[in-house]
Amino acid sequence: MLSEFSLIDRFFARRASAPAPRHEDEAAKPLGIGDDCALIAPPAGHQLAISTDMLVEGRHFFPDVDPYALGHKALAVNLSDLAAMGAKPHAFTLALALPRADETWLEAFSDGLFALAERHDCALVGGDTTSGPLNICITVFGDVPNGAALRRDAAQPGDDIYVSGALGDARAGLGAIRGEWPAPEGSDWRRALERPEPRVALGLALRGVAHAALDISDGLAGDLMHILKRSGMRAIVDADAVPCSNAVRALPEAARRQCTLAGGDDYELCFTAPVAARKTLANIATSVNVPLTRIGTIESSGAPAIAWRDAAGAPLSLTLQGFDHFHAD
Amino acid sequence: MLSEFSLIDRFFARRASAPAPRHEDEAAKPLGIGDDCALIAPPAGHQLAISTDMLVEGRHFFPDVDPYALGHKALAVNLSDLAAMGAKPHAFTLALALPRADETWLEAFSDGLFALAERHDCALVGGDTTSGPLNICITVFGDVPNGAALRRDAAQPGDDIYVSGALGDARAGLGAIRGEWPAPEGSDWRRALERPEPRVALGLALRGVAHAALDISDGLAGDLMHILKRSGMRAIVDADAVPCSNAVRALPEAARRQCTLAGGDDYELCFTAPVAARKTLANIATSVNVPLTRIGTIESSGAPAIAWRDAAGAPLSLTLQGFDHFHAD
Repeated sequence: MLSEFSLIDRFFARRASAPAPRHEDEAAKPLGIGDDCALIAPPAGHQLAISTDMLVEGRHFFPDVDPYALGHKALAVNLSDLAAMGAKPHAFTLALALPRADETWLEAFSDGLFALAERHDCALVGGDTTSGPLNICITVFGDVPNGAALRRDAAQPGDDIYVSGALGDARAGLGAIRGEWPAPEGSDWRRALERPEPRVALGLALRGVAHAALDISDGLAGDLMHILKRSGMRAIVDADAVPCSNAVRALPEAARRQCTLAGGDDYELCFTAPVAARKTLANIATSVNVPLTRIGTIESSGAPAIAWRDAAGAPLSLTLQGFDHFHAD
Repeated sequence: MLSEFSLIDRFFARRASAPAPRHEDEAAKPLGIGDDCALIAPPAGHQLAISTDMLVEGRHFFPDVDPYALGHKALAVNLSDLAAMGAKPHAFTLALALPRADETWLEAFSDGLFALAERHDCALVGGDTTSGPLNICITVFGDVPNGAALRRDAAQPGDDIYVSGALGDARAGLGAIRGEWPAPEGSDWRRALERPEPRVALGLALRGVAHAALDISDGLAGDLMHILKRSGMRAIVDADAVPCSNAVRALPEAARRQCTLAGGDDYELCFTAPVAARKTLANIATSVNVPLTRIGTIESSGAPAIAWRDAAGAPLSLTLQGFDHFHAD
């Protein structure tokens, strides 16, 4: 049995890269794992964007999840929050409660975690390990120039509403596992569910172009409402324009809408941008190799709400429930 | 039943104070709860000190813990890490897994949490809530001037070794609960166990005075070894000089030493300082109203180790095991 300290050292501390230095000033050099605190600072003229997410067995992943995929996902959902703010990943802390110190599990988990961290130059700078029911809490730190963050409260009347990638594959897969509908044929839903790819490059490219943005983690309908409430706006959305895979498109209409509009675990970006930015956004989509789909329009009139339309522009009455950790889903 | 969002709003978001602004620059103003990320920055010439701690039922607290005390302790153990670095508390994030949304519990928990946060001007800037086995993960952010952090690797040969407050009350209380020894009479051990007071003012006063420092969370012996290993030093410590309450002093010798030297949950500071700082430290002890006790000396010779002495200066052979979350304790 490994002790706590040798476990931290073997699977995490030794593989933790030092945070990137930002200053010529030797006194300001960053400090990683091994002290009471890590020490970091954003570059001059920048702020640190901070997000924290807690993943719990049975709620965010299945007990038999591939630990490599879990290591990936635990960091990915946090990097997705940085992407949504237009922040560049810099560092993260990891707190881990484990029922036992299983070396095989830890090796795969840390492999998945560091593979993604290294791709984004995101250094592990601190953490905590304890025994207890499996729980993974990552807090992530990114850099964003002062005033450049993509916030939820910045939607403007007349803005187009966009969604990146395709929505619904993760929810479609979950529904198949639960027997709500047959497994969507040809959908790589397990990859969507377990290996979401945070849209970091897209988020950086949207600085100065998008107005409001967030990442879709609890379903488009509920998440878009956060933008509308904080911006004091209303949205008209073409429900059938919401991008999805061919496999999800082939599901019965009600299932498809549940998956694409209120699915959750999408980790795509939803953002608003002025009509004048359409050409720029087409270029961004090409340069970061992520499809961007225009799904609706922001309006200033009325209380925050989403008016759904079908492909023909006719009003749709949809009752959708976003994902809520304290309601059955 | 409260939904996740109304729960966050009611008990946390509404009571979260905005992080203190640091810049004249409007574009650099901080952002708290309600977006994908919080936005903060240290003042010019400062770094952010970051620490994260995860508290699990049955490991860090009893199932019947007073939720007010738990709210206090969850933040206190993190503030203690800031104190150990000489960092000034600024903000924190809270991730919470709850078996159910119990309003009475949440009200008491958040009361305890915010009472301590407000005393230290530490703003809640973000978080996450999920259902799951009770787990509390706080990540805290403090400010420290570049180069002024009290690190573990800075002990110098000839340094005095100090401990703040008194050690062992929390462990003595735990032992009494477990039936290892009778409840120490006159000891406020429940307060020590459940309401540790982070030594924030002391940590700030030690900037520029102490060399190495850390907070004692896993027992003096094991924690002091972290300083010795990272500084490449050896320590001579008078085991009987280690400060403790009269109640702990009255325990049988073996129990007393177990509590004071390897107890855990003390949240006092252990630090080293040059002999020339003794008068300054006496003044600091008075001004922050925390007893400081000199318990030993740093030496450069030999491998990192603690040589224990009794009050008469005779060598003591002690076998002490620090707290380890993956060993039975």
